[in-house]
Amino acid sequence: METIAARLSAYRDAGDSVRDHLLERRDAIVGADPHNAWISVIDTATLSGMIDWLEQQSPSLPLYGVPFAVKDNIDVAGLPTTAGCPAYCYWPDAHAAVVERLMRAGAIPLGKTNLDQFATGLVGSRSPNGACRNAFDRRRVSGGSSAGSAVAVALGQVAFALGTDTAGSGRVPAAFNNLMSLKPTRGRLSTRGVVPACRSLDCVNIFGLCGDDLRRVFEVVDGFDPLDPQSRPPQPPAPLGAAIPPGRFALGVPRDEDLEFFGDDQTATAFHRSIEALEALGGEVRRIDLTPFLEAARLLYEGPWVAERYSAIRGFIESQPDALLPVTRQIIGAGAEPLACDLFTAQHRLAELRRATESAWAGIDCLVTPTAGHLPTLEAVEADPVGVNSQLGYYTNFMNLLDLSAVAAPGGFTPDGLPFGLTLSAPAFMDRALIDLAERLQRHCQLPLGTGRQTAPAAEALDADHGEHRQAIAVCG
Amino acid sequence: METIAARLSAYRDAGDSVRDHLLERRDAIVGADPHNAWISVIDTATLSGMIDWLEQQSPSLPLYGVPFAVKDNIDVAGLPTTAGCPAYCYWPDAHAAVVERLMRAGAIPLGKTNLDQFATGLVGSRSPNGACRNAFDRRRVSGGSSAGSAVAVALGQVAFALGTDTAGSGRVPAAFNNLMSLKPTRGRLSTRGVVPACRSLDCVNIFGLCGDDLRRVFEVVDGFDPLDPQSRPPQPPAPLGAAIPPGRFALGVPRDEDLEFFGDDQTATAFHRSIEALEALGGEVRRIDLTPFLEAARLLYEGPWVAERYSAIRGFIESQPDALLPVTRQIIGAGAEPLACDLFTAQHRLAELRRATESAWAGIDCLVTPTAGHLPTLEAVEADPVGVNSQLGYYTNFMNLLDLSAVAAPGGFTPDGLPFGLTLSAPAFMDRALIDLAERLQRHCQLPLGTGRQTAPAAEALDADHGEHRQAIAVCG
Repeated sequence: METIAARLSAYRDAGDSVRDHLLERRDAIVGADPHNAWISVIDTATLSGMIDWLEQQSPSLPLYGVPFAVKDNIDVAGLPTTAGCPAYCYWPDAHAAVVERLMRAGAIPLGKTNLDQFATGLVGSRSPNGACRNAFDRRRVSGGSSAGSAVAVALGQVAFALGTDTAGSGRVPAAFNNLMSLKPTRGRLSTRGVVPACRSLDCVNIFGLCGDDLRRVFEVVDGFDPLDPQSRPPQPPAPLGAAIPPGRFALGVPRDEDLEFFGDDQTATAFHRSIEALEALGGEVRRIDLTPFLEAARLLYEGPWVAERYSAIRGFIESQPDALLPVTRQIIGAGAEPLACDLFTAQHRLAELRRATESAWAGIDCLVTPTAGHLPTLEAVEADPVGVNSQLGYYTNFMNLLDLSAVAAPGGFTPDGLPFGLTLSAPAFMDRALIDLAERLQRHCQLPLGTGRQTAPAAEALDADHGEHRQAIAVCG
Repeated sequence: METIAARLSAYRDAGDSVRDHLLERRDAIVGADPHNAWISVIDTATLSGMIDWLEQQSPSLPLYGVPFAVKDNIDVAGLPTTAGCPAYCYWPDAHAAVVERLMRAGAIPLGKTNLDQFATGLVGSRSPNGACRNAFDRRRVSGGSSAGSAVAVALGQVAFALGTDTAGSGRVPAAFNNLMSLKPTRGRLSTRGVVPACRSLDCVNIFGLCGDDLRRVFEVVDGFDPLDPQSRPPQPPAPLGAAIPPGRFALGVPRDEDLEFFGDDQTATAFHRSIEALEALGGEVRRIDLTPFLEAARLLYEGPWVAERYSAIRGFIESQPDALLPVTRQIIGAGAEPLACDLFTAQHRLAELRRATESAWAGIDCLVTPTAGHLPTLEAVEADPVGVNSQLGYYTNFMNLLDLSAVAAPGGFTPDGLPFGLTLSAPAFMDRALIDLAERLQRHCQLPLGTGRQTAPAAEALDADHGEHRQAIAVCG
């Protein structure tokens, strides 16, 4: 397990060779992938070419030589994009905008990772490349759809990874693999070069081991992209202010009757413990009525929004329906049916629900929810592929519809040794504040990073390092 | 013809009786309505009750005793709302939010005005109450759908009026009756208590004789309404700044090939003359490629947006289809057909077009277009009800889809003596700046007000009056 700061320091202070390190990492992935985390890995020649380029750059680049993974619905020129559907495969001419920004900052992509086909699923097993397996227990789901990206980071194969998150696809696998993930404000990270799921809701998400890792990557990829019609110009932070005060803050917690653990008492216990930890950090609990949040969530899959997924791959699904997995075809195919008048009615209802949730936000600095109510086995998902998948979106489906920013944060482990994750959310543009709070929690609980043993770096260590880091950004700016 | 300032002064300085004046105005409307401007007029008892209330208030209320008209798709408690369809009629318990604000400020509604049924039309003749007739020439259309509201102001029956404007329904009748109208930024005026047309696009618009009248009304009705899900919280003005500089400003004008007058050379001449007037006011012409604007316009009626109209009255149109006029039933009924996946595709395309128009806005302070390319006769509309109507939306259909603020301004008269109107538009929240520029133009051209002879009041006269006016607002605020 190695944070970005540790990797940069290994190059800079310990004299690690960028070339040797990256080639070794690549070879290790090619050597064995028992978790089905990867779909394609960069070839040695292309990787060497990237390293040649990197060696011409300043070593003070903020992500100099840092290896990362990319979900296979995000373009990396030189690697095929399949979206988890071999027949859909194409070879992009250009990197996705976020990949381009990362590479200019010195980060190196090692390959493309496994996903629920067309990013439709929260399990990670809806893939012709094999079910992606949990980094802690291979009999369990990895979570999805950004399955392989999460597992690759949790296993320490890469320092960070990119996924996408429309309805929970970044947050759920982060929770299931003891990672931190930023599900940024919609439109804050460019989605140019990303295969759309629900284009108006899709977010690129970042997987990292700790808050410092998320911040370093976010600083590089954050920014308006005039070529992405969904990109939003910078806006002032939400009315509550950009920061959640370290000393004392109003913490929204769902009412007991809104909590749902699907019979998993261990996860329930883990959630209640993590609330205690947040209280120890200054959180003052306010109970929140989740009714309008949960109604918004139901619009996404029970309402006409599935038609947005259909519109994204319409030509493909109409001409090659058999190229999709049956479960994916069933779900996305249903998007051909809804009427536009019903979609308008649902969009008007969503506007009402957004307004209804505003009174909740007026009284709290952030909301904490479980990220998912339980961590199912692959067997359980196989027995009920749609039902179990739906359960996993209970706390995540509403957030992009309601224009929230969110960070999925590690919340400790159940007595069975399975990771538990919670999600901190707030109105749009509160991304940094949420990362900071998740980081405080991770440190407070002294949680191990990914599948490793060491805990998050102390604040003092990072502060010392950050001065230099900030300067480096100014130099390469 | 009497401006709001003149009416207030008549009460305050000339000792006019509020009661006598308002009852006289009411009786005059009941006495004769050869233009088919009105659907219902307030009864004497109700009006007297309102005057009783008013007499308990401070005479410094900003709209003390000022009579106004309300389009019959906006609720006034005590009067039926029909939306131009008698079978749809209901008696609202409460005033629409904008009416409530006006009445608290002292304004008195005299009745409800004629409209194209369900606000679907730009002609004013699609009404079972009889075709509304132009205030200048009864053989011509009034423009619509806010037909009667415009005609009532132009004839001097009321000092100002409310309409609605989804695709041009406020701007077109303003143009055809020599009025000024603010089509405000979407979500800036509450639409609570308004029969929806396209709920996500609908704006309440204001008709007045001059800029000062619009400002006085706008100051009263402007404001966030938490009970209206489409209402937008106050936002900073567009990046270009809140004002259009009086001395020198960049004036966007469509390229010649994008201008369309449907063979009406007189209107073309009037438009070119009004550009000269704007140049005299400091406008520096920049030619603008309207292609993305016009493509957005086509989405509204040729694309799936008509499904939003269908969703608004779905229960009614499905149970009583014969209660609609054939032309309205044909247009709105077609909204049952489009698919949600096509609507998503169109919404994504709209996002692209919005982005495409941003480069145009980056170089100009405002855009000037004709409001409509010609002013047809009722006969011409009868001969081709859908075709001629469509022509009238050529310059107006795109503005709400592209989130623009706009002011329809008088632009003089054709040699035939028919009013010509132009529209000044800019990004959202530029409402006040556009009113100011329209006012400068109206004064510069010394245009008569409505169907009257006197011209707009001079700036000095208003400035003197405004000090007192502002103070009055502070008192009643």
